[in-house]
Amino acid sequence: MCGIVGIYNHQEAATLAYLSLYALQHRGQEGCGIVTFDGENNYWEKDKGLVPDVFADKSKLDFLKGNYALGHNRYSTHGDKSRKNIQPLVFNYKDSKLSIVHNGNLVNLEKIKKELEDKGTIFQTTSDTEYFIHLFAHARGDSFEEKALAAIKQVRGAFSIIMMYNEKMLVARDCHGIRPLCMGKIDEGYIFSSETCAMDLIGADYLREIEPGEMLILENGSLKSLQFDKPEPKHCIFEYVYFSRPDSIIFGQSVDKSRRKFGKILAMESPVADADIVFSVPDSSNTTAIGFSQRSEARYEIGLIRNHYIGRSFIHPSQNMRDMAVKLKFNTIDGVIKDKKIVIVDDSIVRGTTLKKLVKLVKKAGPREIHIRIGSPPVKYPCYYGMDFPSQEELIANQKTLAEIREHLKVDSIEYLSVQGLLDAVDKPDCQYCTACFTGDYIEKIQ
Amino acid sequence: MCGIVGIYNHQEAATLAYLSLYALQHRGQEGCGIVTFDGENNYWEKDKGLVPDVFADKSKLDFLKGNYALGHNRYSTHGDKSRKNIQPLVFNYKDSKLSIVHNGNLVNLEKIKKELEDKGTIFQTTSDTEYFIHLFAHARGDSFEEKALAAIKQVRGAFSIIMMYNEKMLVARDCHGIRPLCMGKIDEGYIFSSETCAMDLIGADYLREIEPGEMLILENGSLKSLQFDKPEPKHCIFEYVYFSRPDSIIFGQSVDKSRRKFGKILAMESPVADADIVFSVPDSSNTTAIGFSQRSEARYEIGLIRNHYIGRSFIHPSQNMRDMAVKLKFNTIDGVIKDKKIVIVDDSIVRGTTLKKLVKLVKKAGPREIHIRIGSPPVKYPCYYGMDFPSQEELIANQKTLAEIREHLKVDSIEYLSVQGLLDAVDKPDCQYCTACFTGDYIEKIQ
Amino acid sequence: MCGIVGIYNHQEAATLAYLSLYALQHRGQEGCGIVTFDGENNYWEKDKGLVPDVFADKSKLDFLKGNYALGHNRYSTHGDKSRKNIQPLVFNYKDSKLSIVHNGNLVNLEKIKKELEDKGTIFQTTSDTEYFIHLFAHARGDSFEEKALAAIKQVRGAFSIIMMYNEKMLVARDCHGIRPLCMGKIDEGYIFSSETCAMDLIGADYLREIEPGEMLILENGSLKSLQFDKPEPKHCIFEYVYFSRPDSIIFGQSVDKSRRKFGKILAMESPVADADIVFSVPDSSNTTAIGFSQRSEARYEIGLIRNHYIGRSFIHPSQNMRDMAVKLKFNTIDGVIKDKKIVIVDDSIVRGTTLKKLVKLVKKAGPREIHIRIGSPPVKYPCYYGMDFPSQEELIANQKTLAEIREHLKVDSIEYLSVQGLLDAVDKPDCQYCTACFTGDYIEKIQ
Amino acid sequence: MCGIVGIYNHQEAATLAYLSLYALQHRGQEGCGIVTFDGENNYWEKDKGLVPDVFADKSKLDFLKGNYALGHNRYSTHGDKSRKNIQPLVFNYKDSKLSIVHNGNLVNLEKIKKELEDKGTIFQTTSDTEYFIHLFAHARGDSFEEKALAAIKQVRGAFSIIMMYNEKMLVARDCHGIRPLCMGKIDEGYIFSSETCAMDLIGADYLREIEPGEMLILENGSLKSLQFDKPEPKHCIFEYVYFSRPDSIIFGQSVDKSRRKFGKILAMESPVADADIVFSVPDSSNTTAIGFSQRSEARYEIGLIRNHYIGRSFIHPSQNMRDMAVKLKFNTIDGVIKDKKIVIVDDSIVRGTTLKKLVKLVKKAGPREIHIRIGSPPVKYPCYYGMDFPSQEELIANQKTLAEIREHLKVDSIEYLSVQGLLDAVDKPDCQYCTACFTGDYIEKIQ
Repeated sequence: MCGIVGIYNHQEAATLAYLSLYALQHRGQEGCGIVTFDGENNYWEKDKGLVPDVFADKSKLDFLKGNYALGHNRYSTHGDKSRKNIQPLVFNYKDSKLSIVHNGNLVNLEKIKKELEDKGTIFQTTSDTEYFIHLFAHARGDSFEEKALAAIKQVRGAFSIIMMYNEKMLVARDCHGIRPLCMGKIDEGYIFSSETCAMDLIGADYLREIEPGEMLILENGSLKSLQFDKPEPKHCIFEYVYFSRPDSIIFGQSVDKSRRKFGKILAMESPVADADIVFSVPDSSNTTAIGFSQRSEARYEIGLIRNHYIGRSFIHPSQNMRDMAVKLKFNTIDGVIKDKKIVIVDDSIVRGTTLKKLVKLVKKAGPREIHIRIGSPPVKYPCYYGMDFPSQEELIANQKTLAEIREHLKVDSIEYLSVQGLLDAVDKPDCQYCTACFTGDYIEKIQ
Repeated sequence: MCGIVGIYNHQEAATLAYLSLYALQHRGQEGCGIVTFDGENNYWEKDKGLVPDVFADKSKLDFLKGNYALGHNRYSTHGDKSRKNIQPLVFNYKDSKLSIVHNGNLVNLEKIKKELEDKGTIFQTTSDTEYFIHLFAHARGDSFEEKALAAIKQVRGAFSIIMMYNEKMLVARDCHGIRPLCMGKIDEGYIFSSETCAMDLIGADYLREIEPGEMLILENGSLKSLQFDKPEPKHCIFEYVYFSRPDSIIFGQSVDKSRRKFGKILAMESPVADADIVFSVPDSSNTTAIGFSQRSEARYEIGLIRNHYIGRSFIHPSQNMRDMAVKLKFNTIDGVIKDKKIVIVDDSIVRGTTLKKLVKLVKKAGPREIHIRIGSPPVKYPCYYGMDFPSQEELIANQKTLAEIREHLKVDSIEYLSVQGLLDAVDKPDCQYCTACFTGDYIEKIQ
Repeated sequence: MCGIVGIYNHQEAATLAYLSLYALQHRGQEGCGIVTFDGENNYWEKDKGLVPDVFADKSKLDFLKGNYALGHNRYSTHGDKSRKNIQPLVFNYKDSKLSIVHNGNLVNLEKIKKELEDKGTIFQTTSDTEYFIHLFAHARGDSFEEKALAAIKQVRGAFSIIMMYNEKMLVARDCHGIRPLCMGKIDEGYIFSSETCAMDLIGADYLREIEPGEMLILENGSLKSLQFDKPEPKHCIFEYVYFSRPDSIIFGQSVDKSRRKFGKILAMESPVADADIVFSVPDSSNTTAIGFSQRSEARYEIGLIRNHYIGRSFIHPSQNMRDMAVKLKFNTIDGVIKDKKIVIVDDSIVRGTTLKKLVKLVKKAGPREIHIRIGSPPVKYPCYYGMDFPSQEELIANQKTLAEIREHLKVDSIEYLSVQGLLDAVDKPDCQYCTACFTGDYIEKIQ
Repeated sequence: MCGIVGIYNHQEAATLAYLSLYALQHRGQEGCGIVTFDGENNYWEKDKGLVPDVFADKSKLDFLKGNYALGHNRYSTHGDKSRKNIQPLVFNYKDSKLSIVHNGNLVNLEKIKKELEDKGTIFQTTSDTEYFIHLFAHARGDSFEEKALAAIKQVRGAFSIIMMYNEKMLVARDCHGIRPLCMGKIDEGYIFSSETCAMDLIGADYLREIEPGEMLILENGSLKSLQFDKPEPKHCIFEYVYFSRPDSIIFGQSVDKSRRKFGKILAMESPVADADIVFSVPDSSNTTAIGFSQRSEARYEIGLIRNHYIGRSFIHPSQNMRDMAVKLKFNTIDGVIKDKKIVIVDDSIVRGTTLKKLVKLVKKAGPREIHIRIGSPPVKYPCYYGMDFPSQEELIANQKTLAEIREHLKVDSIEYLSVQGLLDAVDKPDCQYCTACFTGDYIEKIQ
């Protein structure tokens, strides 16, 4: 997934990038980095870890001189976790300084790889992002724009990228607009970031999304837009379901509002008669649960407390303390649950492992009945555009029927939001979203 | 404030202490430590930092051998932050191993200190806790119990203490029961901890509170209780308001339930006519806000998102980015707030600084009116029993009238819960709580 | 062993203490610390590790405010390596700030311990040093001097101590003067340190040794001396043999000069006829080997190179790489050794393990004959005054005859310096040195 | 400068590489790294810092699986100290794993760089080493050998390189043999390292130097040699003067023996009549000083003690403590120096800054006269092959006459070894050494 940010023409570029990455931390906790340009040189810092940890030392920000910056939060995927893959990637190209950040996944790399290697290219990372740079370096054309355009036209898949070439900046998004990327203004400069929450934090004004198939060139303080490909919007609907922050606006609509609608439509599609209370699995499904309660007789309550102190380095205790992982994260409010007919709202189910343990935990608090309502349709198919789902065999909804899932979780009922309900909630004609993880209807055939 | 735990007679004593401290992390983030006894020696680890960080290295837990353990979370007060003061304190006494953890504040130390020093005592820390040990060592009597009893009878103030003397354990609580301390059973052993949430995490069964003025001696696997002082319960009511975890039971009642009642009574005492929505300042006032909404026409909503990634080491940006501290923690959900008459529920106001910034932040989202409701009475007086309030001059309610506070915060109205409302919510005769921070009625005259 | 330093009345007290500890690093590498006093408070930093590592962060020195400082280098003994035992020890005594550093070992502690514990004393460390403080606190008398004097009179053994009591400083040395302790002047202030090399580094002028049984009180910028015990000098002769730095003056004589004389007398006592070359085991026996060569036909050479990069954390490779430990430290210069009749000079032999491996290493370079000459007599007896020798069973000279040692090391000859030769070299009447480790003639009967 | 090592076909490849780097630590302290290949993947660890520090964690060596390894010690130059430049460089090339280590400096890069960039190459580091890889990837030919040969033929300058291509290893040295590179045998495998001291440590048998212009290919356990260029030996004579370890054999001759001859010839060329003692600036000039003393009336002594504890992180004290840097490293043995006519032998003078401070320090010990003798000719010209001399303006011998240098250092006399004396000492026809830094006679014209 990842989060990206670009700061163009601001004297506190590094600090703004740092704060933006902090706001986008939920998009990637594996590692992060910032590169700046001061008119002459690139300066960069990147490492594994959270933003406040990587930049815990004030001198690191001070080192990042210049009015131009790129930043990146790296998502922890199952693949290569090498430090090498932490972005921004930084290069010397002829006498120029070149750097790049990228959010997304490319899908037609095999053929490109062979061609590049036959021309003598060596790959230093295992990340998609490096392809842009080699395609750029091998592309025809004299100017930065010409070469960048030629490079970008060769790749397919999901890409929201920002490149910095000396003091020029280039921003581009794939023709489907799969991952979000928005633009804002701060003082005399511009900010580009995955979500608007970064702009809120630094006090920038949100202008608009980068359009699918649009490329922006920033040079000499001004901004030029061109459409490098015909837009065929296919936004990732899972960004609304789970990934983005509720206080962000993505694809032109508030995430919070979308989730509230998921909850409301879910309550109407699959009500739970005579339920006493409804509560969420905090924090990602809070808004969906509130939406559900607003179209239900059941009272909204807080039935689960989440512990936020848990760190990466937590030592997991010995095997005879079962289900510890879920207990470290959640505890029940027993007085709220006891003897009640309860509805638990969650945003989505992937493997179902955590939810199964959570149900077991909740049962100890003595509810009369447990009904699960999920604020999105069953996840049945893999994603080729950057969402790190497990293999189909591990997706519970790919392997089991609704009845079997209910059995497996040992609950009184379970219902998902329908695909139509999901699309109704997001306010735009159906065709504009990629729903492949729910429906198997992929944007294009993958090699 | 601090959190304490004792594990008596369990082969995973160190791991259980570790998990308990993790559950009690909210009671102290300055530092933490564990000491164990294995029949022969004491083993301990303690340092500044959060529990998962101090014990990030698995070898530290492995080092803590034995079936007996004490643990402590240290609260960050304005005083001495030296590493020396991190508990448990560990001593060699004659041929025995002695250690102690303590939650609370003693109030009659001046005289005791002089007496001890005149007898040749040297103090190594600046914490109250060391007094117990010196009083113990100077006390008459032959047995551990006799000497411990003699020592404890000399101190006044708030103390929930656990001592370990070789394989014996001693648990005691002051006659007012100011700080919580509860007892549970796990397998063949016992656990003592500040709150029940620690027991929930490790799967122990909650038995009861330690009574005010009660001392327990654990020896040879069994437990003996004696009443060393006449109980005059004066539980700290602020534990319900803010300090304890909502999923804990303290002083015999669920914290969550108490907070919900604070909200309900507050809604009845000080309703906001025609309010559209009510939301909390997350996370400590979530339950209070839900209670409020249940006795109000206003709909419960999530109007503020809290960012949980913020760490100690966060680099605060330059001065021209004002109000950054509050923005790093909170962001508004603008769609929820815009054009609405809103009620913001918070648990308490101390200085008012954060709330003022928060109101400013919320205003940017364009509400029609802002009404503040506080789930506790005005905090006007200092606490001598361990709550780290600032000086009276810094307590906004000590310096300003309600009208002035409203003016200061620039809101349409502000109301607090009444003292009577607070006491009504906690289900027991009025006299059983210390309400000195609200009323100035202290338990005893402080020297 | 340990190294100690006190800085009295200098505005860069912490920096001078830091530099002095750096110069005294050879006296202890286990840990180090500094405490300062600024007229009001004590400030201290101490930790495991070398001086440049413990004080790697400049802010630590900045934190140590004031014109008065004590410092300590801790020697790694086989005993308790707890962080607690790292000095200076720092205490609050009544309304005063008290701290202490100590080099030596006390020998009559059992009885004192019982008396103190019966009076209610609790020991927090397992180091001798804490006894001074408790004796001080329990001593009669009103003034700091009276109490300190009373305390010091109760202990026996080796002690070079410096105490800081608010802005007063007290320096004392046992009546035998077992460990070195010298005094110097820098600007308007004084420095006290184990060896003179610390004074050389900071540019202080060496004044004299503290006399055996002398106590100095520094107050209001001036210095008062009193003799608290009858001096019976018994300086540790092993300080000359191995422990002190060659560029220091201790017990009033240059270490380097003493070692050169050891070598010269050794060459005269036990010459090696027709030897081609003589070389040292670097670096501690370099001077002794030079001395030897100056009274021998054999040419001085460098036959062994020492690698100085080895750190504490060196990972020792698998078992099938034998003798690696000695090879990591030393390599031979084969061209110097091949076909030669060589004399290897070492300062002393304790277990003989390293020397045995070294001989094996040297043999690979193809010498014609190997003769070992040791710049001190056979170490046969344990030290009760702070030299960390192993048990008698592990001392090779206690277990084997000279012939057996020769056999064991597989060399052509081995000879030690005689006790008389040793004493002749150090220029003063025989009775002034403790030679117990060589002769078994202890200063006093040990309990 | 740097140190390199390759281990071919040994089951403890990583450990052997680690120990070899430790032995070669003197060739580079900026950073180090190891890469291994286990038949399928590359594994690598590299970081800033000394070998024992970078590999302080045992798990890092365990991670480096396989029977093939490359290692590198990076020298701290004035240029780019980025972590990126730490070797080995590791790449994916098509489906193969490729890595490289290099010691030396290339001199014809400008033209190559332009050609490569015009073909679309992006440089990720600023080190020479990356050129080999891009030339390799762009070279014609099908096999690894063909392509590697084509790449190597394009570069000029000093290079001792080892490449690993899956389980194949390639070793090559420039036609002048500027930097040392030797070959040894250990069990069934081979070791290649900059100096023989690495072989001594791990117990490998030294076989021979790699010849100038020779390339070795190791494949399927055996070794093939080819001469890719006509050998014109021009070994760096400064390796003997200063850089290599005295216990190594380089260019076929013992470093120690060379240095001893420098000292002897120097003593004959520029004797000091009636000198009392001669001592070295430890440790690099120890052997030269011994050689000097063997052709002189003056006695060899140790006049300076070197402190080995100094670390990188040493906090330098405030400005009013002058000359501290040299005092932290050295102290004088005053008894040796006082009232003597002394000769100080140093290996070389670059800027003269340290020597000036050292002379000042020595003067405080009260010598009668100070005579400096330098075991190499005046360094007057820059090195283009990897020796990090400062600019000509900073080379004291380039700016001042001998008389002026004597004046500047404030000594009684100073003499250098003659160029002819230097060449006489190293036993081979003159033409075989590069003496450019002394004479300005460069091997080839530099662009």
